[in-house]
Amino acid sequence: MTYSPKTFRGLTWHGALPAMRDRRDTPSAYLDRCLATIAAREPVVQAFAALNEASARAAAEASTRRWAAGTPISPIDGMPIGIKDLLETVDMPTQMNAAGYRGNFPKRDNAAVRALREAGAVILGKTVTAELGGSHPGPTTNPFDATRTPGGSSSGSAAAVAAGFMPAAIGTQVGGSIIRRASYCGNIALKPSQGGINRGERQATSQSTHGPHANCFEDLWAVAMEIVKRVGGDRGHAGLMGPEQTPAPVKPQRLIVMEGAGWKTLDAASLRAFDLLLDRLRAAGIQVLRRGDHKLLEHFEAGIAEAGPISNGITAWENQWGHRNLINQDPDAISPRLKQTLAGAEKMTPADYALRLSQREEGQRRHVLIAPLADAVISFASPGPAPVWAGDVPGQPLVARPTGDAVFNTPSSMLFAPVVTVPLMAVAGMPVGLQVMGQREEDARLVGIARWLHANIEAVEV
Amino acid sequence: MTYSPKTFRGLTWHGALPAMRDRRDTPSAYLDRCLATIAAREPVVQAFAALNEASARAAAEASTRRWAAGTPISPIDGMPIGIKDLLETVDMPTQMNAAGYRGNFPKRDNAAVRALREAGAVILGKTVTAELGGSHPGPTTNPFDATRTPGGSSSGSAAAVAAGFMPAAIGTQVGGSIIRRASYCGNIALKPSQGGINRGERQATSQSTHGPHANCFEDLWAVAMEIVKRVGGDRGHAGLMGPEQTPAPVKPQRLIVMEGAGWKTLDAASLRAFDLLLDRLRAAGIQVLRRGDHKLLEHFEAGIAEAGPISNGITAWENQWGHRNLINQDPDAISPRLKQTLAGAEKMTPADYALRLSQREEGQRRHVLIAPLADAVISFASPGPAPVWAGDVPGQPLVARPTGDAVFNTPSSMLFAPVVTVPLMAVAGMPVGLQVMGQREEDARLVGIARWLHANIEAVEV
Repeated sequence: MTYSPKTFRGLTWHGALPAMRDRRDTPSAYLDRCLATIAAREPVVQAFAALNEASARAAAEASTRRWAAGTPISPIDGMPIGIKDLLETVDMPTQMNAAGYRGNFPKRDNAAVRALREAGAVILGKTVTAELGGSHPGPTTNPFDATRTPGGSSSGSAAAVAAGFMPAAIGTQVGGSIIRRASYCGNIALKPSQGGINRGERQATSQSTHGPHANCFEDLWAVAMEIVKRVGGDRGHAGLMGPEQTPAPVKPQRLIVMEGAGWKTLDAASLRAFDLLLDRLRAAGIQVLRRGDHKLLEHFEAGIAEAGPISNGITAWENQWGHRNLINQDPDAISPRLKQTLAGAEKMTPADYALRLSQREEGQRRHVLIAPLADAVISFASPGPAPVWAGDVPGQPLVARPTGDAVFNTPSSMLFAPVVTVPLMAVAGMPVGLQVMGQREEDARLVGIARWLHANIEAVEV
Repeated sequence: MTYSPKTFRGLTWHGALPAMRDRRDTPSAYLDRCLATIAAREPVVQAFAALNEASARAAAEASTRRWAAGTPISPIDGMPIGIKDLLETVDMPTQMNAAGYRGNFPKRDNAAVRALREAGAVILGKTVTAELGGSHPGPTTNPFDATRTPGGSSSGSAAAVAAGFMPAAIGTQVGGSIIRRASYCGNIALKPSQGGINRGERQATSQSTHGPHANCFEDLWAVAMEIVKRVGGDRGHAGLMGPEQTPAPVKPQRLIVMEGAGWKTLDAASLRAFDLLLDRLRAAGIQVLRRGDHKLLEHFEAGIAEAGPISNGITAWENQWGHRNLINQDPDAISPRLKQTLAGAEKMTPADYALRLSQREEGQRRHVLIAPLADAVISFASPGPAPVWAGDVPGQPLVARPTGDAVFNTPSSMLFAPVVTVPLMAVAGMPVGLQVMGQREEDARLVGIARWLHANIEAVEV
């Protein structure tokens, strides 16, 4: 079941809309097809932490009646959606893949989930997350190769969209959890500008976001906008700006290649794929700027060279009280892997944290400085294809980064910048996403550029 | 039991430190005295939502051993402290005076509470809050007149410090909950710059803060700094800046009087008290600027004229999903008063919210513009003394603002500015605080100015 961008056709809701309008298809029938795919593939993919078939069927039937009456609430009325198991849902537990939250069932809807329900969407299930959104993995496998990780932390959302279980799913990103796993699974995904989509009760950390995974830009944008038009952005943020319709494709004139700390970790095949992609961009008349081409680009690269320690330090500091409270209640509430992170955080001082915040702000300033140089920044969305993950070996040290390395994602996270993963590469039969990053609050413009690239640049296979 | 600033001597911890050092006093003995006062007055004051005498005694005994060994952890080692019942504590329930949280006992410490424990403080009890930090009152009465409100939402913290139950307590402010109730109860209190003190799991709303109530500046500052040096500021904020020692008194050269929307609501006696206070400031050589004295002051006043609707609109919008989730679980989970607020919030759109955010930011810009004109801004901390509160009358419309009007507090809340309440007025035997507001992040400088005023300006009684 290897992946080729030329032949892979992900499940979309947008593609079904004409048939819905003509009453040749119904949300109930669409859901039935999703459930059939799930029945066939879930035993291997293991994308779900919880599946609420009864509730989903009831929602699909209500939507079917609305379509029959010609009165759908929104373009996503009837769309089956998965919700990362960090977000609360009124009808399913929220266990966050953590021992300390086993059986947790708060019977509340996250603001984004509520908005989706109000738009008529069918909340199909909770998708597996790495433990508490960190790096300790759940059982999910990569739909294109079950020996490999789907990426984390929102493993289940990415895998479910890739496996055809549903056309879209909600993920969250703090370090690299939306962009990277979308790369590993061939999704189109949006990590919005910081604050762009209301996180609801999960005002988790200072650089966490919610974002959609999908198989087409229309679904991606509709999910984001149907949330934002109902519940807005995070507290203190006006929310994602943009038109109701999917932003029209916009051809970029110039693109900057961001290397970051990840470039030196890349394998030869992935680098070759990227070079071929750059050739195609240039052939399309797009100017490509590399780091040596302008002083401000080197300045920018220096500002994100420490993105990993900055991002991880800030996040670990901010999570430490919550994690310590879990351990105080039950020493086994979190994994040994997360305990390692906590131990590092508890050695930090407020001054260490302030220093990391200052580095983050400096990086953001440097990112603004390169805005005039190009239309967007591109890079890998992950350091090559998804790595093989065979599990920790008892008695051996814990494997570092079992869900892959966030090295290409921490820059956009710390920059609060919007990013889209575009499935434009395949390396040895596995997807590798192109990361397209815009300036903060320019999500709509960025989506237009990403959409143009997806529609006009032939994907590379090596 | 009327109040006079000349004779009232609030309980302090700082005042007991020499005796602690000389071993003439111990934290256990100090706690015993607090408990005796509580036993005598709590039946009328009703400041506590929960009192954990056993846990407090154990903490005081441990502190007593440290003082005996000459090894106190911090200047607040052994200090009894109350915690507003919105913040989680591992050893007491957190019920937030809401039916929907009755019996809620999550066995977690808020980051600030944990910091206080690590500094050796004695967490004595949970203090009554208005429902969910809103305006629906709890049972607490004003220690200087039981027919009057102590103010809200942190009614219990203010009343407990005024009644001598403990030298300091933690409150929270979103609209006016720290500053106003401190005014009504004769406390010294600090509402820090937005983000200055880590809110821990209560990343509630975009303008909420934690802050200390005390009876002297040394206790106020020590409590704030012992928290901040351990757990820093809110997520994304470096935290309160300042020296470990209480900032030295600083004489202001010029002060601006802020009138806001509240000035026209003031009674004649309160206005007379304020005028007398201004006379004393001028007599001390301080220049007083009124709104007509400079174009930028009128510009500033116009920017905060709508502070109430801005602050309340933002907060209601941000709280709506949490409150709706409570009602969805139990129609009686929140009070009819809070349901009115929720109904208003649910009529808002993301654009309404974005408009309020924009007004808030514009106000903040106008506040920065007046920084060069004076050392600080002063005003009433409440619209005169605490009003009488006899309860809602069954069958009648709900009484508006049962815990008093936040009209003098929403400006500093929306400005994210630090504010200190200084007990410098008494009107008809009830305290009325002077509000002293600084520029954002200048908490330490502001505390120095407030301290100078408290030490050098004779309080007014009318």
